[in-house]
Amino acid sequence: MREAYQSDLRHIVDDLLDMADMVGHALEDATTALLEGDLALAERVVTADPHIDARQVELDAKAVELLARQAPVATDLRLLVASLRMSSSLERMGDLAAHIALVARRTHPDAAVPAAHREQIARMSQLGLNALQGASEVIANRDLALAAQVEKQDDELDHLMLEISREISSGGQETYTNAEIIDLTLLIRFYERLGDHAVSLVRRIGFLVTGDSVDTLSEGVDVPEF
Amino acid sequence: MREAYQSDLRHIVDDLLDMADMVGHALEDATTALLEGDLALAERVVTADPHIDARQVELDAKAVELLARQAPVATDLRLLVASLRMSSSLERMGDLAAHIALVARRTHPDAAVPAAHREQIARMSQLGLNALQGASEVIANRDLALAAQVEKQDDELDHLMLEISREISSGGQETYTNAEIIDLTLLIRFYERLGDHAVSLVRRIGFLVTGDSVDTLSEGVDVPEF
Repeated sequence: MREAYQSDLRHIVDDLLDMADMVGHALEDATTALLEGDLALAERVVTADPHIDARQVELDAKAVELLARQAPVATDLRLLVASLRMSSSLERMGDLAAHIALVARRTHPDAAVPAAHREQIARMSQLGLNALQGASEVIANRDLALAAQVEKQDDELDHLMLEISREISSGGQETYTNAEIIDLTLLIRFYERLGDHAVSLVRRIGFLVTGDSVDTLSEGVDVPEF
Repeated sequence: MREAYQSDLRHIVDDLLDMADMVGHALEDATTALLEGDLALAERVVTADPHIDARQVELDAKAVELLARQAPVATDLRLLVASLRMSSSLERMGDLAAHIALVARRTHPDAAVPAAHREQIARMSQLGLNALQGASEVIANRDLALAAQVEKQDDELDHLMLEISREISSGGQETYTNAEIIDLTLLIRFYERLGDHAVSLVRRIGFLVTGDSVDTLSEGVDVPEF
């Protein structure tokens, strides 16, 4: 009985890792669709998002069922509550990847990202993906040294968002259409939010490992000022 | 003992209502600061946000403690899990109000919102506030008829976001600086997200009342396409 329970808890962690994997693929594909103007790929990311949502529904149902049936306390209770929160973060990250794909789809066949910013956007996507994969490892192995790295990647994401935003504001050599500015503003915010959610994931594991009494995580005003 | 427990559950609902009240004030003040260029008020909204965050931490700690001590099942368990999610939504709504105040602070003494869009932004704020107050009533009284109204207000918010976005894209009579377009894009997205969170609040109550077995709520790709 207790063994089955421990195995159920492990399954929940496995489900979180599966969700993170699905989100990672969505993010990678969304950025490829965006930068390569690949409409079919953008479509696939959008239509795959409900699968990520469905995984969250399943995971949460399992967690609530365990809460009801096992009345866990201490670490197990904290793990289940943290899992409910982490599944929300992952579901939201999936939405953000789908939003990126929607921008790619809407602007097709035009490029949503002006040539001058392609490298920056590719880098933002890579940082987001690294942060997500780092968060997965932290969830799997509770390796808090890696957690610091995820936070660092998020700082670089924030920095890139500000840099792009300032370049657009100052105009510089580039000229932008109004629609391009709207799209770029949304895109850099989507990538930046992906990084925030990755940070939120690793902080929840941090609370679990260090036994901090705060099960919750208030993320504060997390948008760096443009 | 059971009476104390029922009273603890009621306190959690009261805490949610308090949080909603704090968020409502923050939203109202943020929009006033934005449209009136009131720097001191913007500052107050930003510095008040940690109080909303702290309320979430307290509420969540109480909910987790009840989970541990009472091992609730059925409706009580569902209420606690839903409360953990609703407190997250409210905390995030507080952040969004603070983001609006940050835009007001950053652009001061210039107006962040061009004259042509002031009325639309004021309307978006009012719709967000109505949706939040509607959600509070739904939480307090479980009045699902009101829930439909909150969803309708959110539709109007989405519509206004698209309208402003299209007006900026098409240029029309207005000319915008690049920085103005960035700020407006962010602002309309902040208001739109506030509406999404209000919808999420009423849907959670809907699940509780109707006894839907799905405790979780997947919000899908919730950004209407620009």
